[in-house]
Amino acid sequence: MEDIRLIEIKEAILSENKHLADEIRHCLTRDKTFMLNLMSSPGSGKTSLILRTIEKLKGEFRIAVIEADIDSMVDAEKVAARGVRAVQLRTGGFCHVDARMVEKGLKPLDVKELDLVIIENVGNLVCPAGSDTGAHKNAMILSVPEGDDKPLKYPRMFQVSDALVVNKIDYLHAADFSVQAVKQQAMFLNPDVVVFETCCRTGEGIDSWSHWLETQLLDFLAC
Amino acid sequence: MEDIRLIEIKEAILSENKHLADEIRHCLTRDKTFMLNLMSSPGSGKTSLILRTIEKLKGEFRIAVIEADIDSMVDAEKVAARGVRAVQLRTGGFCHVDARMVEKGLKPLDVKELDLVIIENVGNLVCPAGSDTGAHKNAMILSVPEGDDKPLKYPRMFQVSDALVVNKIDYLHAADFSVQAVKQQAMFLNPDVVVFETCCRTGEGIDSWSHWLETQLLDFLAC
Repeated sequence: MEDIRLIEIKEAILSENKHLADEIRHCLTRDKTFMLNLMSSPGSGKTSLILRTIEKLKGEFRIAVIEADIDSMVDAEKVAARGVRAVQLRTGGFCHVDARMVEKGLKPLDVKELDLVIIENVGNLVCPAGSDTGAHKNAMILSVPEGDDKPLKYPRMFQVSDALVVNKIDYLHAADFSVQAVKQQAMFLNPDVVVFETCCRTGEGIDSWSHWLETQLLDFLAC
Repeated sequence: MEDIRLIEIKEAILSENKHLADEIRHCLTRDKTFMLNLMSSPGSGKTSLILRTIEKLKGEFRIAVIEADIDSMVDAEKVAARGVRAVQLRTGGFCHVDARMVEKGLKPLDVKELDLVIIENVGNLVCPAGSDTGAHKNAMILSVPEGDDKPLKYPRMFQVSDALVVNKIDYLHAADFSVQAVKQQAMFLNPDVVVFETCCRTGEGIDSWSHWLETQLLDFLAC
């Protein structure tokens, strides 16, 4: 019998992606541009949180947003209406943003002239967690109407996120949702995670979140 | 309002894939190695057709097979047992073979010492049709138990295939399947398609199929 060579494609492609992501991170660090990758289910409030964040930090930092959507430009238009540069990646069915897509998204941006790039990932709690984008930090949103069992169901997303934003806390009175339980589970999965409670609609909690992001940025720029 | 840049990711990635596929095809042509990409639904008889083809052409040509499977090595073992070199791509969930995977699959093979490489694509009538592998010719199998409505449901697959193998014709007596209707629909979608009727179990029709492939190979090698 002749020999058989076995090639693990998924690992090979993930390792290629990791390699490119590391390269992107390296170049951004050299150019003093901080990149945040924001993930969540569809409709958890990624765009709203980005708009609130722009409001808070726009005076202090030069910001751009890379929006990923299966097939629309609505979010990019909302961001651009705030006077911030937006790149819309129309993924055409791809379920997450990978490093190759980020490379394309960064190309039209003059990265050296930016302090902060925010990636709004595709709405999905599974695939984005497995694919390094080249961002310096990952943040995720869990909105109250989604239920407090999500850390048990999607542990990987909670493990890779540096910050967890529990959004739509105005629904807490109506929902059977324990912020305390989510915090405990998230910190069990990821002891370093920082948790925020927000309501993007009213602006509640946005100060703490923005302050955390500002601190990350200032620490990064001071290096 | 700041400007928005729109980037079509799917098109960009498909065009990158096309570029790499063209490069692979170019190198194989230079090295006088013909590559065939074999596609079908799961269980239509791809491995059986490859084993029958090896039997027929092994004496005349130096053959290797690139097997793609979500998570097994069974097919590669069957091929290797016939004394033919096999590379197993374990796709780990990817639904089709793209040019990057083929590039990895060709690497352990000494391509210059081969006349024919057959890719057994992932069992799927949709995604493989959209992704150029770098092969010189595409072939697809439609097995009788799948039904004769497949050209209407998966037209792209029939459009990109140079040869259509209608397999498991021993089921024709039991199934409501019109080979004539399939031929007509396939030729409407792709006027140049060549159609074969086979039964890999008994070997019926394998001569015509092998003869076609042999002719493709000889024409290619004569160039």
